Amino acid sequence: MPKDMAQEKTIYARRESGARSYCRAFPATFTEARGSELFTEDGNRYIDFLAGCSSLNYGHNDPDMKAALIAHISQDGIAHALDFHTDAKEAFLRAFEENILAPRGMDYRVMMTGPTGTNAVEAAIKLARKVTGRRNVIAFTNGFHGMTMGALALTGNASKRGGAGTGSLGDVTHMPFEGAMGDGVDTLQMIESLLDNPSSGIDAPAAFVFEPIQGEGGLNAASDDWMRGIERIARKHGALVIVDDIQAGCGRSGTYFSFETSGIEPDMITQAKSLSGFGLPFAALLIRPELDVWKPAEHNGTFRGNTHAFVTARVAIEKFWKDDAFEKELAAKSVMLTSAFKEVADLIDGAALKGRGLMQGVDVGSGDLAAAICARAYEKGLVIETSGAHDEVVKCLAPLTTPDRLLREGFDILLEATREVLAERSAA
Amino acid sequence: MPKDMAQEKTIYARRESGARSYCRAFPATFTEARGSELFTEDGNRYIDFLAGCSSLNYGHNDPDMKAALIAHISQDGIAHALDFHTDAKEAFLRAFEENILAPRGMDYRVMMTGPTGTNAVEAAIKLARKVTGRRNVIAFTNGFHGMTMGALALTGNASKRGGAGTGSLGDVTHMPFEGAMGDGVDTLQMIESLLDNPSSGIDAPAAFVFEPIQGEGGLNAASDDWMRGIERIARKHGALVIVDDIQAGCGRSGTYFSFETSGIEPDMITQAKSLSGFGLPFAALLIRPELDVWKPAEHNGTFRGNTHAFVTARVAIEKFWKDDAFEKELAAKSVMLTSAFKEVADLIDGAALKGRGLMQGVDVGSGDLAAAICARAYEKGLVIETSGAHDEVVKCLAPLTTPDRLLREGFDILLEATREVLAERSAA
Amino acid sequence: MPKDMAQEKTIYARRESGARSYCRAFPATFTEARGSELFTEDGNRYIDFLAGCSSLNYGHNDPDMKAALIAHISQDGIAHALDFHTDAKEAFLRAFEENILAPRGMDYRVMMTGPTGTNAVEAAIKLARKVTGRRNVIAFTNGFHGMTMGALALTGNASKRGGAGTGSLGDVTHMPFEGAMGDGVDTLQMIESLLDNPSSGIDAPAAFVFEPIQGEGGLNAASDDWMRGIERIARKHGALVIVDDIQAGCGRSGTYFSFETSGIEPDMITQAKSLSGFGLPFAALLIRPELDVWKPAEHNGTFRGNTHAFVTARVAIEKFWKDDAFEKELAAKSVMLTSAFKEVADLIDGAALKGRGLMQGVDVGSGDLAAAICARAYEKGLVIETSGAHDEVVKCLAPLTTPDRLLREGFDILLEATREVLAERSAA
Amino acid sequence: MPKDMAQEKTIYARRESGARSYCRAFPATFTEARGSELFTEDGNRYIDFLAGCSSLNYGHNDPDMKAALIAHISQDGIAHALDFHTDAKEAFLRAFEENILAPRGMDYRVMMTGPTGTNAVEAAIKLARKVTGRRNVIAFTNGFHGMTMGALALTGNASKRGGAGTGSLGDVTHMPFEGAMGDGVDTLQMIESLLDNPSSGIDAPAAFVFEPIQGEGGLNAASDDWMRGIERIARKHGALVIVDDIQAGCGRSGTYFSFETSGIEPDMITQAKSLSGFGLPFAALLIRPELDVWKPAEHNGTFRGNTHAFVTARVAIEKFWKDDAFEKELAAKSVMLTSAFKEVADLIDGAALKGRGLMQGVDVGSGDLAAAICARAYEKGLVIETSGAHDEVVKCLAPLTTPDRLLREGFDILLEATREVLAERSAA
Repeated sequence: MPKDMAQEKTIYARRESGARSYCRAFPATFTEARGSELFTEDGNRYIDFLAGCSSLNYGHNDPDMKAALIAHISQDGIAHALDFHTDAKEAFLRAFEENILAPRGMDYRVMMTGPTGTNAVEAAIKLARKVTGRRNVIAFTNGFHGMTMGALALTGNASKRGGAGTGSLGDVTHMPFEGAMGDGVDTLQMIESLLDNPSSGIDAPAAFVFEPIQGEGGLNAASDDWMRGIERIARKHGALVIVDDIQAGCGRSGTYFSFETSGIEPDMITQAKSLSGFGLPFAALLIRPELDVWKPAEHNGTFRGNTHAFVTARVAIEKFWKDDAFEKELAAKSVMLTSAFKEVADLIDGAALKGRGLMQGVDVGSGDLAAAICARAYEKGLVIETSGAHDEVVKCLAPLTTPDRLLREGFDILLEATREVLAERSAA
Repeated sequence: MPKDMAQEKTIYARRESGARSYCRAFPATFTEARGSELFTEDGNRYIDFLAGCSSLNYGHNDPDMKAALIAHISQDGIAHALDFHTDAKEAFLRAFEENILAPRGMDYRVMMTGPTGTNAVEAAIKLARKVTGRRNVIAFTNGFHGMTMGALALTGNASKRGGAGTGSLGDVTHMPFEGAMGDGVDTLQMIESLLDNPSSGIDAPAAFVFEPIQGEGGLNAASDDWMRGIERIARKHGALVIVDDIQAGCGRSGTYFSFETSGIEPDMITQAKSLSGFGLPFAALLIRPELDVWKPAEHNGTFRGNTHAFVTARVAIEKFWKDDAFEKELAAKSVMLTSAFKEVADLIDGAALKGRGLMQGVDVGSGDLAAAICARAYEKGLVIETSGAHDEVVKCLAPLTTPDRLLREGFDILLEATREVLAERSAA
Repeated sequence: MPKDMAQEKTIYARRESGARSYCRAFPATFTEARGSELFTEDGNRYIDFLAGCSSLNYGHNDPDMKAALIAHISQDGIAHALDFHTDAKEAFLRAFEENILAPRGMDYRVMMTGPTGTNAVEAAIKLARKVTGRRNVIAFTNGFHGMTMGALALTGNASKRGGAGTGSLGDVTHMPFEGAMGDGVDTLQMIESLLDNPSSGIDAPAAFVFEPIQGEGGLNAASDDWMRGIERIARKHGALVIVDDIQAGCGRSGTYFSFETSGIEPDMITQAKSLSGFGLPFAALLIRPELDVWKPAEHNGTFRGNTHAFVTARVAIEKFWKDDAFEKELAAKSVMLTSAFKEVADLIDGAALKGRGLMQGVDVGSGDLAAAICARAYEKGLVIETSGAHDEVVKCLAPLTTPDRLLREGFDILLEATREVLAERSAA
Repeated sequence: MPKDMAQEKTIYARRESGARSYCRAFPATFTEARGSELFTEDGNRYIDFLAGCSSLNYGHNDPDMKAALIAHISQDGIAHALDFHTDAKEAFLRAFEENILAPRGMDYRVMMTGPTGTNAVEAAIKLARKVTGRRNVIAFTNGFHGMTMGALALTGNASKRGGAGTGSLGDVTHMPFEGAMGDGVDTLQMIESLLDNPSSGIDAPAAFVFEPIQGEGGLNAASDDWMRGIERIARKHGALVIVDDIQAGCGRSGTYFSFETSGIEPDMITQAKSLSGFGLPFAALLIRPELDVWKPAEHNGTFRGNTHAFVTARVAIEKFWKDDAFEKELAAKSVMLTSAFKEVADLIDGAALKGRGLMQGVDVGSGDLAAAICARAYEKGLVIETSGAHDEVVKCLAPLTTPDRLLREGFDILLEATREVLAERSAA
């Protein structure tokens, strides 16, 4: 082992918590990144089909955001000022209003929560309970909403839940997501039946919280009908609709919000990951104005409204969302992705396509096989990860801006990796 | 009202959640900041005695950190890469090990939690419950630990707790902090007595969580004896000691960690606010290695280990903590602050000095008076805030690097504001 | 209003809590009772198809139990002695062992809990959590298990749950009982699917708790297959099986325990209601010996093992369960009940038979109609009650010992009442 | 070992749960009891200083209650009729109104809860939360309130709490009872200080629940001042006052209710144990009429209002409480008890008298010594038990009706037992 690598290993093993994870599958030391490519200290280059788990929808170090951020810092722009008014915040709010809300006929207040998705989720459920006076929140199988106690209670994953030790993960009812009970079963009917029954033991819910496309849960994409069904049931039972759009939002689904095609009107929408456009920590909760009953500082936090993120987020919004050109590009790329994943699926017995938009993947049947494929792909220069309750889905979260030739190059690696792994397995 | 201001008002009223707070007391639009000074869009200048609630201990836009950050961005350094190994992370860990841990003989793992203080607190109590198999966590009167459900359960403030609506804030026992029962009462004895009594109804605790100096709770500074007492009681009852050093750490108390003078050896230490040095979102949990039983990704999160923050944090550590020169400066400034606050206290009947190090203030007896003084100071060009259960403490959190002349200028404003308010009140 | 009635009204209105309920539907003052007949202070006689909600399976004041109890009291037998050894307790335990457990090849410890069904349920779930180290308990839609906080958390009824006010009813997952999702839906498959999915958010259960025939929930009778399915799923997931046999046990279903035909082997069985045979407060939890890890007094209570109830319970067991004669009688009566309820059902569009054994009824489609029928029957001398999530089931819980002619007389009243109510409604 | 004893042992070991407890210290088989004496199957006689833990305040098998109960059963009086109106219930309510409430100027509704003390406590806290809309209930160190989850959450004893396993015992704050922090410490001041501090983390309470004399907790008797203090603090903070008078009520303290001398006016009062007068299961919750907002059946239960208990309770009330003669007797006996316990205390270094009225004892300094004394007393024909967080108090709960000569005889045994044990220990 070269001396440098030994040292590097030493510092992480010695000083970073065992909770670290991605660096175990992708152990290189990364030093630079541009667009959809990552570069390591020893000169290697990787195509990035992970994109910070959808935090880099516009790629690494987008030149326009980069220029704006450097300009801001250079002129001693505000880096941190709690929730003071700043030119950067105002510009962000204006851009968001003009390019995101107004064209979609949406009327929401923006709550700058702590700059993590989990914090936006916590704010949402706190507000839902406060507004409705109810305690129970309905979340869904395979849902992922964060690691702080309130959001973790909503999260389905048993291993993640185990991290709470003996702590209570209460006040939540977990219901089956669309398709979770098998193909023939209408989960809306089940949910409605349970809520309609006054002796079901399911307390009247403050809110339903769901991801239109479950990112960590296996790229389960809810149909427009199902989303409308949840909205209808929620309205009928006096519950709020909270869409967690942290991973599927900011264009990942093909539209800015992932629920746009359904026509539902959520009461709250969580945003994080790609909201800053540049990978900077930033999260927000969109709230229908009449529900915004927060008292000043009732949910506060030091880093609400990361100012650097305001700068890059404004550029991202103005660059990509001022008209429908980007959406059209995404539609084309989405078709390409489906076709590419079909090639992978065709290699594997029983494999099934998952997801939609720029958030697609293939269920290869087992976590073991999915892990082997991703590991082989990494050896060949592609960063790609798994998802799902059993980590059985190979998932592409490439930047939305990835050029077609890089997408193609990435998929060629994925196909080759898949073929090699399958060949080795059938030989064994 | 000028058109611009009207518009500005409009965008915040129209689009930002009512949860915003500081901007109500300090309504200017800030555009630039350097060191301990803030500048507004209409050319005004304010001295900053708030410093992002202790998130800007080294002042705004420190030139060395700024240069390093611009260099990093300019060369397409990693902005976001989940928890991948990066040159920036490695350099940070090395700097932290060599300049913070090693000189103090401390052996801790660094857990990169989500980049908010509340997330580090959540990670700490989850781990404490996981390690001990116990559920109850002991927190203290006037403690402030965050707004997510797990951390909020530890927080004392009734208004903040009310934000959870009907949600459960359980699994926590609140005990009196030092001095909370009045001067004559030994709260250690109370706590020990309750824990020693097998019929007290207080379940065996997983951990004690406390701030050595309660920042939001009114600058209550625990004595070294009290901290050692808590450590002793915790060890006796098999509980862990978690120090929440989010506001009082990074030099604010006069030493890097706020508990250093006590000699206690916490099992975990939370860090956030000034950890990045530049005001960027960043938080970490320090864990004694034998307690670091996290499985990979068991507490995960998208923005763990903000890479831009690694860059600035490394500079901050190397610039300010490579030897004891900065600590010596802080000792001198601390004396100056005490003297300056004494001048303020002398104006007010019954006023009392609070806090220690660079985290001092004066209890003026009522939240009403404290608010009036701070409002008047703001009119005169000083940003300063209150703290305490009744917001009765005028608190100085000026950058640790504030030049003496600016400190003096700030205090002159504070004195003048105090005199004016008192004069008006006695006239009324 | 006669003077006596006015006074009577006065004392209850003035001094008894508004929580009283049955006396509102059946407002007479009852003074005597024999077998299946109740007598009032003004000389009226009612046939009792309620039997203390199945607490009087052997009728009122059975002469043999009565004689034994009077003898016991007359000779200054122990009335209360905590959980001391007494001749009465020993005789009860021997009778229970010889006549109930041994013939069925069952090996259980008898835990004398507080003398209410809810207390036995609380003991069961406490023990299940203690034994498994798990927290979550799975209960079922329309289940009824008691009013104390632990048992209430298991109970489905929203109105009953509302009695807890803001108190937490946590640590329980409510799943659909057999048939609860409609005829075509296999709820076992749903339950198994949710538990098999490691990302369902349903924490691994300590136990499943169910009533083989849901007494309060609408006489929903689980099939033997369904009970076996629950047992299989429980074993697969390391959970205990707790049968709540409080209302359906002691012969009510046609066999002593209501699950006997299924062949399942519960880990715990709750008994109360008719356990004393005489209507005296008495409850017990049967525990598989290897699970009986209680420390002495770990679940205690003043009235555990009501001694008077030991006396009558022993007589009941020896009189009715020493051979299979009584079971044969019950089989015949069960057929008669089905036939009688069919006559009622035939009068009503869409009516459906419910329940099995001596716990049958008819779903008349609405709580309104069911209440009207029961009210009319009461006017005619029959005490009979409703059940179900919407109180839509007219339910017969006549003593198991009711002579055929009294059953017939009661059903004649019920038929007449039904005809009259229907006629009036169609006329209206 | 004689054959019979072996068999007897067999049946309990084989068939009764390990949760049984008193029979371990007092293993004889009891068959008869009269007044303050217990008789065993092998002809031995014991003086009863335990009285069913204060459930037999009027002694065993009081002849008047016995006669009334036999008469009721003989004429086929109602044994069980849910909460129907019965002559027995009406007579009980009238007697309670005329002899207990009216003379004391008290106006309460009687809620017939399930016939266990824990059920009355559960009803009380459910109602308090329902009425106030608050969740937190304040209970006290060394308090004992029952074993069902809601009441267990209020109970202090760690071993009892451990019986809940992983179940949540939440929504309760445990505060120090009078004297619990040592002689010099004013616990009222502590409690008030914590509640007055809006940042204490103690949520606004729905109610305070306390025992005026803590029966299981070591005979800690609250002073009138302390009870008034709790009432004052409760009123100030909008909380209800619930007195748990299950063990100390029904004359045990020297007056019918144990708080009478303080003049406080509780919002609710729990009664059980000696309420029936005869040791029969019976419990009730007294509720101020304006707080009785229960909907019909909102807290229900099969055995509410045990009819046999109505019969004996009426006799008890009319026999002992129609004038103040009994109270005067109790006053005299109380003096005698103090004097007798002083004799015991004088034998033991550091021993201290505990309790008041007919609920007195001596703290002998260790549970080990207390257990040895009680065991020796049992050998000599006296049933007496310990109490306290460490079981360090030898406690006399003899029937209130115990003749002076039997009290003397019992204390002579206790003194002799104490002397013998001390002599053996000093010899060892």
